[in-house]
Amino acid sequence: MKIGVFGTGVVGQVIAEKFESLGHDVMLGTRDAQQSLAREAKDGSGRPALKDWMAAHPKVKLGSFAEAAAHGQMLVNATSGFGALEALKLAGEKNLGSKVMLDISNPLDFSKGFPPSLSVCNTDSLGEQLQRAFPQLRVVKGLNTLTCFLMVAPRMLPGMHHIFLCGNDADAKAEVRKLLGTFGWADAEMIDLGDITNARGTEQLLPIWVRLYGKFQNPMFNFSIVRAEQ
Amino acid sequence: MKIGVFGTGVVGQVIAEKFESLGHDVMLGTRDAQQSLAREAKDGSGRPALKDWMAAHPKVKLGSFAEAAAHGQMLVNATSGFGALEALKLAGEKNLGSKVMLDISNPLDFSKGFPPSLSVCNTDSLGEQLQRAFPQLRVVKGLNTLTCFLMVAPRMLPGMHHIFLCGNDADAKAEVRKLLGTFGWADAEMIDLGDITNARGTEQLLPIWVRLYGKFQNPMFNFSIVRAEQ
Repeated sequence: MKIGVFGTGVVGQVIAEKFESLGHDVMLGTRDAQQSLAREAKDGSGRPALKDWMAAHPKVKLGSFAEAAAHGQMLVNATSGFGALEALKLAGEKNLGSKVMLDISNPLDFSKGFPPSLSVCNTDSLGEQLQRAFPQLRVVKGLNTLTCFLMVAPRMLPGMHHIFLCGNDADAKAEVRKLLGTFGWADAEMIDLGDITNARGTEQLLPIWVRLYGKFQNPMFNFSIVRAEQ
Repeated sequence: MKIGVFGTGVVGQVIAEKFESLGHDVMLGTRDAQQSLAREAKDGSGRPALKDWMAAHPKVKLGSFAEAAAHGQMLVNATSGFGALEALKLAGEKNLGSKVMLDISNPLDFSKGFPPSLSVCNTDSLGEQLQRAFPQLRVVKGLNTLTCFLMVAPRMLPGMHHIFLCGNDADAKAEVRKLLGTFGWADAEMIDLGDITNARGTEQLLPIWVRLYGKFQNPMFNFSIVRAEQ
């Protein structure tokens, strides 16, 4: 499948690597591809410079947000929360159309240091903002509640653990669920919370996620919902 | 131990029952004991009227917030989030002193229906508000992320699952941890997140908790933090 991934940071790279390994035709989208490639330094999380990463993944394409949006039969938003709405605007309504977009981004505000607060929460969410701005786009919020290294390799953790999907379009959620199944997620591990307003719930998991990350000094953990025997 | 429990709703009752069964000397605190006893109807969660519950638990005492605060060597706040600050004001600074208070309350706002939003979140929390209002009181936020029926009986769920403690006083957290151990919580299941500002993290678990509750139509679940093998 042709997939457009918005964002060239660690989340975009790790997701793109996984898609590449599964045989998909991936294009990363960024604001200015030449500028992104010109960066020499490692990124904040110690990942190699984008040009080095691209060289190591020759099958992955790089383009503008608009080009990545046009490329993808399915889209993934892996930008920062602050960059998400702008990225979609640059992608353009025509290129986004009524495609399915998995939105992994979180509205984290690091302006006052760690742990971050949220730039939108409680009675609204970033997922809803994106859906409102592009009503035809079929936004599915998901994968935003764990580190990207586990998003694409859930079996690195022992036993059952969970991710949460929400969105207004049932077919879109079914497509995302099928794709994530190829990452190793069991069907019962993907909890469908309902429409996109439920992004308020999943994005507000981040405040405890970042604190647990600070405590463990290790992002390799996830939430599991333990229920009484049915 | 003498324990004062603020709140006569389902959370206060269930916690008080557990304390009673463990041999503690418990007093429930309410705004107006006579008025609370005069209510004939079952409460919103289908629990019996308070007078019937009191009759079934003759060892548990009932008093004003101030009397319950004076009674307890340790205190538990099991009021609604909206009622919490007012309950503490009625309890009075003199009676609260520098006692340990386990704060179970959550700032849930049901004014727009279900699921509730939060009346404080993100850059502040109810736990912090209570601690700021009574700087000598040693507030420990905890047990606020699961149903009261599991708070007092964690082994009703299979395997390991977690609760989160936070507060500014290490001794207070140690006392709460010891008490919760007698409920059946294993030490490794009680995650200490640090100071009281971490209540922002645990209170913001409620938005997804209420949505999972809505989905499951059953409150008998809890979060477990699954980590990679150490």
